[in-house]
Amino acid sequence: MERSRIDELLRVYRAGLLEDVVPFWTRHGVDREHGGFLTCLDRDGTVLDTDKGVWVQARATWLFATLYLAVERREEWLELARGGIQFMRAHCFDTDGRMFFQVTRDGRPLRKRRYVFTEAFGAIAFAAWARASGDGRAAEEARALFRLVLRCAREPERLEPKGVPGTRPTKSLGMPMILLATAQVLRATIDEPLADECIERCIEEIRRDFMRADVRAVMETVGPNGERIDHFDGRLLNPGHALEAAWFMLEEARHRGGDAALVETATTILDWTWERGWDAEHGGILYFCDVHGLPVQEYWHDMKFWWPQTEAIQATLMAHLATGEERYERWHTLAHDWAYAHFPDPEHGEWFGYLHRDGRLSVPLKGNLWKGPFHLPRMQLYCWKILERAQAGAPHGDTLEV
Amino acid sequence: MERSRIDELLRVYRAGLLEDVVPFWTRHGVDREHGGFLTCLDRDGTVLDTDKGVWVQARATWLFATLYLAVERREEWLELARGGIQFMRAHCFDTDGRMFFQVTRDGRPLRKRRYVFTEAFGAIAFAAWARASGDGRAAEEARALFRLVLRCAREPERLEPKGVPGTRPTKSLGMPMILLATAQVLRATIDEPLADECIERCIEEIRRDFMRADVRAVMETVGPNGERIDHFDGRLLNPGHALEAAWFMLEEARHRGGDAALVETATTILDWTWERGWDAEHGGILYFCDVHGLPVQEYWHDMKFWWPQTEAIQATLMAHLATGEERYERWHTLAHDWAYAHFPDPEHGEWFGYLHRDGRLSVPLKGNLWKGPFHLPRMQLYCWKILERAQAGAPHGDTLEV
Repeated sequence: MERSRIDELLRVYRAGLLEDVVPFWTRHGVDREHGGFLTCLDRDGTVLDTDKGVWVQARATWLFATLYLAVERREEWLELARGGIQFMRAHCFDTDGRMFFQVTRDGRPLRKRRYVFTEAFGAIAFAAWARASGDGRAAEEARALFRLVLRCAREPERLEPKGVPGTRPTKSLGMPMILLATAQVLRATIDEPLADECIERCIEEIRRDFMRADVRAVMETVGPNGERIDHFDGRLLNPGHALEAAWFMLEEARHRGGDAALVETATTILDWTWERGWDAEHGGILYFCDVHGLPVQEYWHDMKFWWPQTEAIQATLMAHLATGEERYERWHTLAHDWAYAHFPDPEHGEWFGYLHRDGRLSVPLKGNLWKGPFHLPRMQLYCWKILERAQAGAPHGDTLEV
Repeated sequence: MERSRIDELLRVYRAGLLEDVVPFWTRHGVDREHGGFLTCLDRDGTVLDTDKGVWVQARATWLFATLYLAVERREEWLELARGGIQFMRAHCFDTDGRMFFQVTRDGRPLRKRRYVFTEAFGAIAFAAWARASGDGRAAEEARALFRLVLRCAREPERLEPKGVPGTRPTKSLGMPMILLATAQVLRATIDEPLADECIERCIEEIRRDFMRADVRAVMETVGPNGERIDHFDGRLLNPGHALEAAWFMLEEARHRGGDAALVETATTILDWTWERGWDAEHGGILYFCDVHGLPVQEYWHDMKFWWPQTEAIQATLMAHLATGEERYERWHTLAHDWAYAHFPDPEHGEWFGYLHRDGRLSVPLKGNLWKGPFHLPRMQLYCWKILERAQAGAPHGDTLEV
């Protein structure tokens, strides 16, 4: 990548983060009355729904603590992270140590889900906060959540079963993919001793059970030992998830000072995913596709959500910087240009979240229980910092200094 | 409606039912090996997934038994209904009397849901079969399922709670709407003694708790006493459900020999729903909309599914025949023409199920766990028979003679 291109992209990501996306959420998404974050926002930032998703409470908390650590010691960001931690401590934990999924504005529980993804996002929030604030109790809370997720990942029978037990056990890419990223954050922030082993196990599980060279695909749902499941769910591919897995591995290779085998695995995932997930007709990354090209049952399969695009931008950029391969720079340009042509809202800032396949808007909202300040600012922060390191000739090491 | 138009439409619905839709499912959708129905079918009838949805097992069974009763005593249809009943008896009941939601091809349970809609569809299947076959045990099974649904409708705490209990209890239009139609089938087929009272209570509940004159809308989700819920879910309108409620009431008014107040309620629902659900820009009935016109959280809100269109065709036709109002004939023509221009597959028969807002195809499949031989052939059968009665100058009485 040419020096001038690096400089140009760096400016786009940094300015987008600090002058557009973060201000949008601090202006509209902070609950100054009850604490925590209001993320169900209309196009102009008007609150559409006061309910609070705990995923986004945790992810926003992680973001503000991480901005404080990796960008600058801005008191406002520390206070926003503190507000998220206080709201979660007061309202988002059930008596069994698990977290709720959705609570009312004032923190009364509405839903709890069988999955432990909320707890994984909670773990990164408490860990980043612990590092930013020096709050030792938060580090213990992060470790407890991480251990809870680890136990459920290794002994899924601890969780309420998804279906009738026994008939067709399955596991999803989401678990090792999210656990891998969670462990990376806990290692960087609170020096979690179980992180390295967890990361290695997640990588091995993805390689062994989810990657299928015969069909050049990363599966989303398989049997407990990677068995193929020839049903709608088992044939489903989720390119956004695969792209996240790819860049988490590229980040891990950087952490290890350059791990050629891991870069090879990550770029293989990226190659396979690009072949299937990139929409050659309209541009952008598709939400779902079928491994055999058969019809998909999920209704929104061909929509363009914001987050697979941000993951594609980041994965292709990191792959290019790790390998020097020209095609990753080309793919990065395609992903970046399509996303930036269709998602940003020039009038009110931030990105729309949900477009039709051809890029037309499906809904104008800026946030809901799932879309909050996470995928987009995370991409902007990582891409800015990784380009900064590229400028400095530092291809290895954790992207963020926390 | 002019006599020639009645004749023309009658031919379209009858021929569509008997020469297109029913043959598609008997040719491709019958599991000759394990019994029951395979409904996850690609465009040409190829099986995409062998899993069996119990909703569609029950609804297909109801359809074939009802065709036997209301069209002609065709042995093939009776045997298809028998196959559905045998498969459900053998494989679709849990030990607590509730039914599963999804089973494998050979009948091993995969999923059970907290809702009792499966049991309501089971009730109409066993009731229609009992009438068609004279199987007294089936009548008792139908009554037991109906009573189970009634108990859960009246004491929702019997069901596993949807969210954390107590914080924000809700109820949905689906329950009284489906219960109303279920009771109508059980009254007609097995002379269910609780049916009339149940029907009256469902109508009253919809009038009292779901219809809101101030905003001219039938709500989909309200509090236990009809309280407004100003959150995404509480603002959501489901025009297809409201259209079903409208024609179930029009059918009830016919059964009662013409009940002007009930016709008024039903046409009010239709008027309100048309104002909001008909897509003036592209045509067709939208899947979801927000009562205040705000963004909707469900991703497929602006898609055109097949079933709200069939319900619109039937509701507008019945409203026109009940009232003579010109606008219902006009709306019927709009709904009929848009659906028939976009959904039928001229090459392989039947209808596609899932279109984008502008009528472009989203997926080519003909069936899945939800789409099977039900909404489309039910509409064709009812519209044929109601037009036949209109030809005969018989505006009242149950549409189907079973």
